Amino acid sequence: MADHATVKTALKAQVIETPSWGYGNSGTRFKVFAQQGVPRDPFEKLDDAAQVHAATGVAPFVSLHIPWDKVEDYAALAAHAEERGLTLGAINSNTFQDDDYKLGSVAHPDPKVRRKAVDHLLECVDIMDATGSRDLKLWFADGTNYPGQDDIVARQDRLFEALSEVYARLGEDQRMILEYKFFEPAFYTTDVPDWGTSYAHCLKLGDRARVVVDTGHHAPGTNIEFIVAFLLRERKLGAFDFNSRFYADDDLMVGSADPFQLFRILHEVAKNGGFAPEAQVAFMLDQCHNIEAKIPAVIRSVMNVQEATAKALLVDTDALRCAQQAGDVLGANAVLMDAYNTDVRPLLREVREEMGLHPDPLAAYRASGWQERIVAERVGGLQAGWGA
Amino acid sequence: MADHATVKTALKAQVIETPSWGYGNSGTRFKVFAQQGVPRDPFEKLDDAAQVHAATGVAPFVSLHIPWDKVEDYAALAAHAEERGLTLGAINSNTFQDDDYKLGSVAHPDPKVRRKAVDHLLECVDIMDATGSRDLKLWFADGTNYPGQDDIVARQDRLFEALSEVYARLGEDQRMILEYKFFEPAFYTTDVPDWGTSYAHCLKLGDRARVVVDTGHHAPGTNIEFIVAFLLRERKLGAFDFNSRFYADDDLMVGSADPFQLFRILHEVAKNGGFAPEAQVAFMLDQCHNIEAKIPAVIRSVMNVQEATAKALLVDTDALRCAQQAGDVLGANAVLMDAYNTDVRPLLREVREEMGLHPDPLAAYRASGWQERIVAERVGGLQAGWGA
Amino acid sequence: MADHATVKTALKAQVIETPSWGYGNSGTRFKVFAQQGVPRDPFEKLDDAAQVHAATGVAPFVSLHIPWDKVEDYAALAAHAEERGLTLGAINSNTFQDDDYKLGSVAHPDPKVRRKAVDHLLECVDIMDATGSRDLKLWFADGTNYPGQDDIVARQDRLFEALSEVYARLGEDQRMILEYKFFEPAFYTTDVPDWGTSYAHCLKLGDRARVVVDTGHHAPGTNIEFIVAFLLRERKLGAFDFNSRFYADDDLMVGSADPFQLFRILHEVAKNGGFAPEAQVAFMLDQCHNIEAKIPAVIRSVMNVQEATAKALLVDTDALRCAQQAGDVLGANAVLMDAYNTDVRPLLREVREEMGLHPDPLAAYRASGWQERIVAERVGGLQAGWGA
Amino acid sequence: MADHATVKTALKAQVIETPSWGYGNSGTRFKVFAQQGVPRDPFEKLDDAAQVHAATGVAPFVSLHIPWDKVEDYAALAAHAEERGLTLGAINSNTFQDDDYKLGSVAHPDPKVRRKAVDHLLECVDIMDATGSRDLKLWFADGTNYPGQDDIVARQDRLFEALSEVYARLGEDQRMILEYKFFEPAFYTTDVPDWGTSYAHCLKLGDRARVVVDTGHHAPGTNIEFIVAFLLRERKLGAFDFNSRFYADDDLMVGSADPFQLFRILHEVAKNGGFAPEAQVAFMLDQCHNIEAKIPAVIRSVMNVQEATAKALLVDTDALRCAQQAGDVLGANAVLMDAYNTDVRPLLREVREEMGLHPDPLAAYRASGWQERIVAERVGGLQAGWGA
Repeated sequence: MADHATVKTALKAQVIETPSWGYGNSGTRFKVFAQQGVPRDPFEKLDDAAQVHAATGVAPFVSLHIPWDKVEDYAALAAHAEERGLTLGAINSNTFQDDDYKLGSVAHPDPKVRRKAVDHLLECVDIMDATGSRDLKLWFADGTNYPGQDDIVARQDRLFEALSEVYARLGEDQRMILEYKFFEPAFYTTDVPDWGTSYAHCLKLGDRARVVVDTGHHAPGTNIEFIVAFLLRERKLGAFDFNSRFYADDDLMVGSADPFQLFRILHEVAKNGGFAPEAQVAFMLDQCHNIEAKIPAVIRSVMNVQEATAKALLVDTDALRCAQQAGDVLGANAVLMDAYNTDVRPLLREVREEMGLHPDPLAAYRASGWQERIVAERVGGLQAGWGA
Repeated sequence: MADHATVKTALKAQVIETPSWGYGNSGTRFKVFAQQGVPRDPFEKLDDAAQVHAATGVAPFVSLHIPWDKVEDYAALAAHAEERGLTLGAINSNTFQDDDYKLGSVAHPDPKVRRKAVDHLLECVDIMDATGSRDLKLWFADGTNYPGQDDIVARQDRLFEALSEVYARLGEDQRMILEYKFFEPAFYTTDVPDWGTSYAHCLKLGDRARVVVDTGHHAPGTNIEFIVAFLLRERKLGAFDFNSRFYADDDLMVGSADPFQLFRILHEVAKNGGFAPEAQVAFMLDQCHNIEAKIPAVIRSVMNVQEATAKALLVDTDALRCAQQAGDVLGANAVLMDAYNTDVRPLLREVREEMGLHPDPLAAYRASGWQERIVAERVGGLQAGWGA
Repeated sequence: MADHATVKTALKAQVIETPSWGYGNSGTRFKVFAQQGVPRDPFEKLDDAAQVHAATGVAPFVSLHIPWDKVEDYAALAAHAEERGLTLGAINSNTFQDDDYKLGSVAHPDPKVRRKAVDHLLECVDIMDATGSRDLKLWFADGTNYPGQDDIVARQDRLFEALSEVYARLGEDQRMILEYKFFEPAFYTTDVPDWGTSYAHCLKLGDRARVVVDTGHHAPGTNIEFIVAFLLRERKLGAFDFNSRFYADDDLMVGSADPFQLFRILHEVAKNGGFAPEAQVAFMLDQCHNIEAKIPAVIRSVMNVQEATAKALLVDTDALRCAQQAGDVLGANAVLMDAYNTDVRPLLREVREEMGLHPDPLAAYRASGWQERIVAERVGGLQAGWGA
Repeated sequence: MADHATVKTALKAQVIETPSWGYGNSGTRFKVFAQQGVPRDPFEKLDDAAQVHAATGVAPFVSLHIPWDKVEDYAALAAHAEERGLTLGAINSNTFQDDDYKLGSVAHPDPKVRRKAVDHLLECVDIMDATGSRDLKLWFADGTNYPGQDDIVARQDRLFEALSEVYARLGEDQRMILEYKFFEPAFYTTDVPDWGTSYAHCLKLGDRARVVVDTGHHAPGTNIEFIVAFLLRERKLGAFDFNSRFYADDDLMVGSADPFQLFRILHEVAKNGGFAPEAQVAFMLDQCHNIEAKIPAVIRSVMNVQEATAKALLVDTDALRCAQQAGDVLGANAVLMDAYNTDVRPLLREVREEMGLHPDPLAAYRASGWQERIVAERVGGLQAGWGA
């Protein structure tokens, strides 16, 4: 069993990236419920993210989404972040909210639309230069709704052409990370529907192209930890988009629907060196807090990742390997379950206190008065959401 | 094999109800793509529905959705419909788009919100009185996103209390038809998630409460025709909400994702007397034409239902029964497949010509010039969508 | 929060029923891997079950499966059980392993086959009379593989006729509990595919007919705890068949694939009075230990149910209700998760010690020498499996 | 639209491979129902396959399964085939039915078991040398049932090592084709669970390693035609294992559960050159005729593939491309549906007559008297099944 000191050191070194859009409004196609105190601009989103980092101590990175987080002066935004102990993280592109993108973006049959989409991606790299971000995170809503609507292979050709152009534009320290998604908003084909498709493209693009695993983007029953282990073996795992789901891409708080799955995923990360800085795996959240309070939900999500990580780190890897090699099915499973069944909350409280933090991040947030302040102060203006 | 004359008579007598909201804009949580010429009010929606009926001859009913189709004068709306050969159909309630409904409507923990929701349902019955509609169609977005969020049983109690009050308010010729849905927008529990729940409530409510089968509202792999057959056996099938899907509630054009499934469903309807007027089964569409032209998509959908119906009517029921009773697995399957593999488009062209219609409804619509006219004339104003 | 004394009392009173066939060989259609020491007859199965009860203290009931457990003298079998502190539990019928049942049993198109099947069910009631069993557990493999193969409604009619005849034969203290299953071995329709179908039949049969929830018998994504809560509300939950799965009816050890789901199910049981003797809910295991050691796997499964039960009993129901009524989504979820995240193994060790048991049932079993003994002694003869 | 002469030529050139084991008994874990007249050895299986080829004219290849089809003299077996107009096709390995393989074969933790498994694969290549077979078809049941049971990455390492050794043994004209499967018989991880895993291994192995797409081996909702198109684009599609399913790996007759899906798959094959001999795609059946007559079921399956192929070939590719490039969603879909909705049975009757065959293969088989003959003659001996 890993000794507690080592586990604590690892937990203190953990880095989780929260998404700027998680602080804004979101919803379903049926309704976006607004919440009081929601940020009106990227600067206010960073202010909220700073609260999460203050309470947890492990969330210093913030992903941006372009154009939702477009600003005149990215240096000013980066400075705003730095003042709050934050660093700007991945730049997320958006090629799905313009009327031109009704039938796709980089895979659209019309070259003019493809050009527009690629130009947006190149602009995102410009923004990365300005913010110092390492990762260009690409998710494409591209696909089709009806059989015959478009040519599957032609769309792959167009996709790869676009990716190639953008990849060539990356700086030496920049990466392209490519997300896949089973379905939605496309309902027949999706152009990057599974890890295999993303992997195949990344392989051709080069070493700085890697796969993003969004935990909500799989077919029912898919064994996600297998994919994670496989990609780590291939050195092609670029990042996680954490969230959880019971059905489709529900975007619930990570760990809330299936905490055991999250543990199994993080066990593979731990076992295969994925927490090491040189593995260059980014641990991001990508969630929608449609009905629950947003900042506390992000804090809770960070805590869920921490708890699952702690359990994963507590796995007695020597005992596990022994049981596995002996073919002891029940014994090996029991080693894993022993770690999972451990209550790691006391350990995490210790970790936080040793980091100079309140042992209970949610209590710390409540005590901060921040929620009351933003509800009182953020009056008027247009609340941030998926459209702004 | 059913003789062609009988089949034709049945096809001419078919009645399909189209939804007012199918003519307006719709989309996913990522984007609603607007289309030119979309109606700005319920009267214009009826104008479009009239085009579908003119082209197909079998779509005289139009469902309304309250409040999206709220008007000052429902008698005027009914008259507008009648002048175009249409009849106002089911009234669909909406208890999911007000900020009060964030945690539910009729099953909300707060009695004030439940009161508001029930009042809306009662108002819908008032509107039924004014429009002469037979059916109150209830779909509740109610549910929860997180384990523990609310009490499952308490929500059933509240739901049943609300249904009972509304059922008691119905006139003698009015019905309550209760839709179920697997998930979305609720992502953990849904208060009416399956046919069993709807059936159990309808059984307690009384004879005028029946189940609505929306073909997109099931878990992956669910055998929908089994449910249809079971409900017809119990005389509890109230209506269909037709659409199709590859994944979740994709709301694609009925018959576009799995035409064989649609045929199997309609085979059960035919075999079990569901097309007879006394069966009182309403055949409604409920779809989202997010990226395709709306009126042509509705026409195509009506045609898809007609084609599947024609095939279902062509099943040689005597031969089928013989093979079934003999335990001839391949033989019985072959009888069904013979009907399915028949190209019924020539038969339907004949039917249309005998009804005085153009044999090709889509060509008829194109020739009508209606699309050009609405694009030219419907300029300005707020396009109808799910929110209006 | 429930005080520990109350929780302990409840845990000591818990009763779990293990299946005789769980001690025999089982496998997939690809291969049944035999294990050393497997019982050769029902008496030896009871001997193994007695070891599970000895180690855990909460597994005194054993389900039988007819004809796998057919014996000349059921009184002798019952006496054999009693001598070991066991009681014979539910009688499980088998109408799927005779060549006559290729196209079904009670729903078969041929009345002769139906008669044979019903006679078998009546024989099972005779056996119940002899063993003193309360429950006749019915699972039917009946269904079809191809569209058109048989008439869905006719099969329901035949099914209900058979159930009615058997129900009429039951003694006053006997029950019929009817299991549903999504699919397998039938691959197109299954005659009792979901809880709604079982519920509808049980409702017509009478108060002593109830639904069995097998946790592996649902469509992907189905919310099982909703069904459990609904059936408890209707007083129609008769029993659980516990096991777990990642994909289909995998029949893995209960709690091994999704321990959080098991906790949520047992939370609904606890919340809705399902653990009370008067609720008459039977807690059975129904699993296949294809590759792991069988007796230790059953012990582990019992422990998994105990741990999930302990967590469910620890839920602070007052705090939960408060948060639910206040619409505090995160707060209510947190109350539930607090119980789930508790390490209840120390509590269960205490419970066992207070019951005069070894705190670690698996260690107790290992120390007993039973495994070595049966491997040494049970040589020759035909090992028990699904076919014997 | 493709002219009929071209379509006919293509249909006459079609080659479908039937599996030797499809003529033997098969079943589910619950029961294998035996049928009269089933072959007792590989020679009799070829006799039955010859009937399928005689009736359809397009099924000259027969896959073998080792050890089920092990014979002393493969040259004699090949001669037996040749005399009947047949050719021996792919050699299928079996590393799942020996007791040693309880925890896997090529990925087993014990090197002795791995050695045994690899030796079996090498023996299969020896058999290929003897039979002249081109393809070694590999499907591994390898995986785990419980989290922690074995190390995911270590198993990949072992798998790749085994594949590499066998690949190196292949002759220049021989190929390795690697099948993936979502789950079953492993219920937690499967070592080759998806096309991405098979693809990644094949890519490293070399040009003569290709992916097998079994149409029943995917997660619910998976878009199989996307995978087919993608693999054709990469020149990595080696073969199909055709069958169909409603739920899991049901192994029903191809085209019986979702004929539209089969059409869409074959449309991608046609569109992307997959029917051309130089594409080297093998079209195999892999099915279980558990309850239906076996030879007629294979004939029907071949006909289903022919019908779907005919429809795929009838797609008006020029019109389709035009509509796709114009972004005409409904128009493009309509072009595809026009082909699908065509009744191609008359065309296939013509094709058969021009090939000198009976226009109705099933009638031809019935008229042949073969079924009566095998029922009468194949008495005694051990019927072939999955175990022999």
